[in-house]
Amino acid sequence: MDRLSRLASAFSLTLAFLALGSSAGAFPPPQAPAAGPTGLLALMPVPESVTAREGRFRVDEGLAIGGPGVSTSRSFKAAARFMSRLAGRTGLFLKQDFLAAQKPSADGGIRYRYEREGRLLPNEDESYTLSVAADRIALSAKTDIGVLRGLETLLQLLSADEAGYYFPGCEISDRPRFTWRGLLIDVGRHFHPVDVIKRNLDAMAAVKLNVLHWHLTEDQGFRVESKVFPRLHELGSDGMFYTQAEIRDVVAYAADRGIRVMPEFDVPGHSTSWFVAYPEFASAPGPYAIERRFGIFGPAFNPAEERIYPFFDAFFKEMAGLFPDPYLHIGGDEVEGHQWDANPAIQAFKKKNGFADNNALQAYFNLRLLRILTKHGKKMVGWDEILQPGLPTDIVIHSWRGQKALVEAAEKGYQGILSNGWYIDLCQPAGDHYLNDPIPADSPLDEARKKLIMGGEATMWSELVTSETIDSRIWPRTAAIAERLWSPASVRDVEDMYRRLGPISLRLEELGLLHIKNRDMLLRRLAGGARIKALKVLAEAVEPLENYDRHGQAAYTSLSPFTRFVDACAPESLPAWFFGNKVGRFLAGKDRQAGAELAMKLKTWKDNHASVLPLLAASPALREIEPLSLNLARACEAGLESLDCLTRGERRPAAWVEARRNVLTEAAKPAGHAELAVVKAIGLLVEACAEPVK
Amino acid sequence: MDRLSRLASAFSLTLAFLALGSSAGAFPPPQAPAAGPTGLLALMPVPESVTAREGRFRVDEGLAIGGPGVSTSRSFKAAARFMSRLAGRTGLFLKQDFLAAQKPSADGGIRYRYEREGRLLPNEDESYTLSVAADRIALSAKTDIGVLRGLETLLQLLSADEAGYYFPGCEISDRPRFTWRGLLIDVGRHFHPVDVIKRNLDAMAAVKLNVLHWHLTEDQGFRVESKVFPRLHELGSDGMFYTQAEIRDVVAYAADRGIRVMPEFDVPGHSTSWFVAYPEFASAPGPYAIERRFGIFGPAFNPAEERIYPFFDAFFKEMAGLFPDPYLHIGGDEVEGHQWDANPAIQAFKKKNGFADNNALQAYFNLRLLRILTKHGKKMVGWDEILQPGLPTDIVIHSWRGQKALVEAAEKGYQGILSNGWYIDLCQPAGDHYLNDPIPADSPLDEARKKLIMGGEATMWSELVTSETIDSRIWPRTAAIAERLWSPASVRDVEDMYRRLGPISLRLEELGLLHIKNRDMLLRRLAGGARIKALKVLAEAVEPLENYDRHGQAAYTSLSPFTRFVDACAPESLPAWFFGNKVGRFLAGKDRQAGAELAMKLKTWKDNHASVLPLLAASPALREIEPLSLNLARACEAGLESLDCLTRGERRPAAWVEARRNVLTEAAKPAGHAELAVVKAIGLLVEACAEPVK
Repeated sequence: MDRLSRLASAFSLTLAFLALGSSAGAFPPPQAPAAGPTGLLALMPVPESVTAREGRFRVDEGLAIGGPGVSTSRSFKAAARFMSRLAGRTGLFLKQDFLAAQKPSADGGIRYRYEREGRLLPNEDESYTLSVAADRIALSAKTDIGVLRGLETLLQLLSADEAGYYFPGCEISDRPRFTWRGLLIDVGRHFHPVDVIKRNLDAMAAVKLNVLHWHLTEDQGFRVESKVFPRLHELGSDGMFYTQAEIRDVVAYAADRGIRVMPEFDVPGHSTSWFVAYPEFASAPGPYAIERRFGIFGPAFNPAEERIYPFFDAFFKEMAGLFPDPYLHIGGDEVEGHQWDANPAIQAFKKKNGFADNNALQAYFNLRLLRILTKHGKKMVGWDEILQPGLPTDIVIHSWRGQKALVEAAEKGYQGILSNGWYIDLCQPAGDHYLNDPIPADSPLDEARKKLIMGGEATMWSELVTSETIDSRIWPRTAAIAERLWSPASVRDVEDMYRRLGPISLRLEELGLLHIKNRDMLLRRLAGGARIKALKVLAEAVEPLENYDRHGQAAYTSLSPFTRFVDACAPESLPAWFFGNKVGRFLAGKDRQAGAELAMKLKTWKDNHASVLPLLAASPALREIEPLSLNLARACEAGLESLDCLTRGERRPAAWVEARRNVLTEAAKPAGHAELAVVKAIGLLVEACAEPVK
Repeated sequence: MDRLSRLASAFSLTLAFLALGSSAGAFPPPQAPAAGPTGLLALMPVPESVTAREGRFRVDEGLAIGGPGVSTSRSFKAAARFMSRLAGRTGLFLKQDFLAAQKPSADGGIRYRYEREGRLLPNEDESYTLSVAADRIALSAKTDIGVLRGLETLLQLLSADEAGYYFPGCEISDRPRFTWRGLLIDVGRHFHPVDVIKRNLDAMAAVKLNVLHWHLTEDQGFRVESKVFPRLHELGSDGMFYTQAEIRDVVAYAADRGIRVMPEFDVPGHSTSWFVAYPEFASAPGPYAIERRFGIFGPAFNPAEERIYPFFDAFFKEMAGLFPDPYLHIGGDEVEGHQWDANPAIQAFKKKNGFADNNALQAYFNLRLLRILTKHGKKMVGWDEILQPGLPTDIVIHSWRGQKALVEAAEKGYQGILSNGWYIDLCQPAGDHYLNDPIPADSPLDEARKKLIMGGEATMWSELVTSETIDSRIWPRTAAIAERLWSPASVRDVEDMYRRLGPISLRLEELGLLHIKNRDMLLRRLAGGARIKALKVLAEAVEPLENYDRHGQAAYTSLSPFTRFVDACAPESLPAWFFGNKVGRFLAGKDRQAGAELAMKLKTWKDNHASVLPLLAASPALREIEPLSLNLARACEAGLESLDCLTRGERRPAAWVEARRNVLTEAAKPAGHAELAVVKAIGLLVEACAEPVK
């Protein structure tokens, strides 16, 4: 990392220049690299080692790429996608015929090589080195998967100057810190068709994630075709499931991108949808219907019902054939227990077997499942609840409840992956996710135990997302998590991460993601027209309620509309973050221009309310946001008054401050299932006006 | 139509008010119905008969919909989609559980009924009546397909006022003018995956189109899996083809929306991709490679090669089983003839059989195919070249070369469908397509012959479109064609069509179409950043070159990037159309405010150049548009000077006019494969300044 730091320092002048250039709008919206060697500074995740060197490799229509492998090989297909994306960005008619013709490229182009084909397993070598000189680019890796990772880095390096597009001269040596870098997508609570999964796989590959954790079954839906037990998907999915052909297609698509696909079948709880077809496997009599609400529900498999084990045996045998990954996730979380407690046969079974509590009963169930999975060649992964005495240490503990569970598991010799702190459905800031670390600096684990921590996963639980909004909930924040999992532990500069997050977000659009463009689309639908500028300005200052607070606002079900203003808002507003950051710099005296820029932004937000009002009149669905818009105007007025006070070097009496505090208290209240994201920063300005306490 | 005319007249005050309301921006961008009874005036296609009545049916969370049919029936699924789209627009938590529970709805909601299930055949009854009163909505139809059409009308009626959302009271009686209302999608030249096809099927249903003409094979690709001859798709598609499971899925998806799917396998020409696997069936020796370029190519099946007939027999038997529609399109267009002329065996075959020319040879080939299709239960459709002596009259002639061919065919007793005039790939104005009529007012056909004209199809040839841009080429212009095919012949008010086109375009976004949102996305990619306002302003005034002119600008292939500025421009700019329309009204003295509004728009476009320049500096891919931006500024300056002259009631000498003509001549030149769409209208302003000739 020292070399990178030196690099950053060498470019500090350029950076300052760029910051100046972008300050015209005061609060930089996502910006891709402008003219200059910024490609090197836009990399995400940051490589292990980067050294800038002289020279620029020019991209023109004679560009060629070549390496070993036939047209069906992974690296060859990746090279073809690389050329297509490069052509798309530059508008250049790059020669792509040779890819189909399988001819080696001419000298002087991009050459890649690798020693062997990579296996889609944990701890596979994904390292690469990339050397860009004015006359050639060389990409070397132990495996073809390393080549894929390097090609993504190279695409991020694309820069432009007066003469056209180029790759800046550099030497990069890179490899991941963690071997398990995942994204969980919950297709149970809301189904997401294959095209949604594929575009997210492309985005995962772009930020070097390598595990799709496919959460396939839930109370609200059973999403995979079973040929052995077809009633499962026929009765449990409302017709919304993946055919086995689609599953195979997705698995192959992921493999082409160096991504493992681990399926999850969540049992014994979270399983209502299974019981629509097989009520006899539940712990209470049926009939059962697909659950529409969200929460923790009672239905659970009956561990005392011996017939479930041959059922699981046949079912997991089928699924083991469908999913080649050696790991299979059995869930195991949130078994609510009421059904078990109320069933006399289960009570008798517990007594007979000497199970002290439901945890012991679940451990028994897990052990039976483990034998089945082992028989079919799968290693078991489960949420941290499965960590119970009696389970062998070759299972993987997936921690959702906290770092502590991971440490506890490692101390007992279990491998673990982390998701606690990476619940991207909760609409928390990227900065928080970014600093969350599977092995924090103060980890109590010794070096040997640390090796048991394989990595982690961002979790896209889908209660409140549809296929229209899921991309915006995953991206760009998951890129920050991807960096935590790939880059050296020392890469922890939150401001620098936010500076790179916008450009990365824009680049992800080329993969078909709807995370940026669907915001405007939702606003157009709400406004019933194309004039949405005022709504976009308001959305800069608004975020969905964090954590589980939105569930408290309405009785959401899987059939509810997710087309409100709140759904068009980003989980974290980058303009709001930059505003808050600038307030901090202004108050710390670090940024002399910040005062004027903050005033400009506050005025824009304040004046916006007048433009919002006519839209509300025309659109009943928008009327719920009137308090947000009005409160933003009032809060910004308080902010402007405070800025004025501070710019004059004055202070204000307690009553003056108190009146504005009251405005902000009101402005902090949620409306439309959302809240203003700039109240806290404005509050800092207000408080700074207070006369010192005597 | 009389009743609708009266209706429009009754609402003229409202309309005037709305026009005033929207004039703040001078040139209305797409606007959805604002508060007021505008739902009735936004219908597209216009129903056969509409009568407004008292009352507003309020949409609230108690809304219920019900009718006959189980949850697997077409109308039931359509009702479920209706409720989901209504919830999405209004944000209301509509009760949708009952749909799954199959309970009849409570009284006072929306009730639909039909006499029988419709068949997916030409001439099936698609009529419906819709009655909206304050307390109930009744939708009646002969078939469930009529119910689907009526539900789309009802969704278009959604309106809003101070009290919330409502459906305006009305009585609608409706049925299509033509029974064949199609959209051709060419997936040969550029492949478009299933999700692209599905979202376009949804949009087709929204404007009451009922035939997807799936152009599945081309020189550039063979796009359907054949289990009988797998080498066809394996070698002819670059891996980009539909599996048979996907085909069945699409056919079922279309059937659920009352849409037929007619496949096209274009033979004997346009068939290079077939010969990669089977060079022995071509008229010249191979080997063959998938064609990457565009144009008319030599390779053609060899009609004298007897082995092709058993091949086609087996192939069409397989395809006949895959596609349930009674019609199958064999193409038959643009057989270039060189391969036939150069092959001695074919020459001998022609001589032996007494074929005077290649047309006769192709007629022989078609007759052989016809026997095969007939054997497998399919009726033959082909492009107008297939109209040759010897073919029975139960084939359908698909006219791409002109109205004349259709008339000629009808006079000979053939059924026909029209596509000439509806080549939406050529980026022509919606107004031109709109006035194109399969049976124009001056048709020479008698009433009996007119009945042979079944309708027509918009054709989305895909040389210059990718899955990123295809939606914007199809929509919204195809809605104008859909109206021509559905609505009474007397509905021909071009201005009124344009007024409704924007709102319809916005509504189509709810079906997942990318036609609006991908423009901004492409501009962001080009600009390498989110600040694209100046590019959007420029794009208002720019259109892709029309007809085949763009092909003259570069040697496009199927691997070229279609990510330039021109690809982000709409085929027809609605703001440019409204500008031209306003110029006309201003010069005709019909619109007193137009002068000021035109000046505002001209000034915006003129000043925009200064904002475009820094974007060009940062983005080499954008530099090709500098002449467009500069010429727009210059042309607008000429326009402003002319407006000033006209507003003062003055005239200018010939030299003054000539100088500005020269500016406009320069401004009319293409750049970046695009052209300015407002030069002609500005020219009218300039010419109006000329002193009268003495």
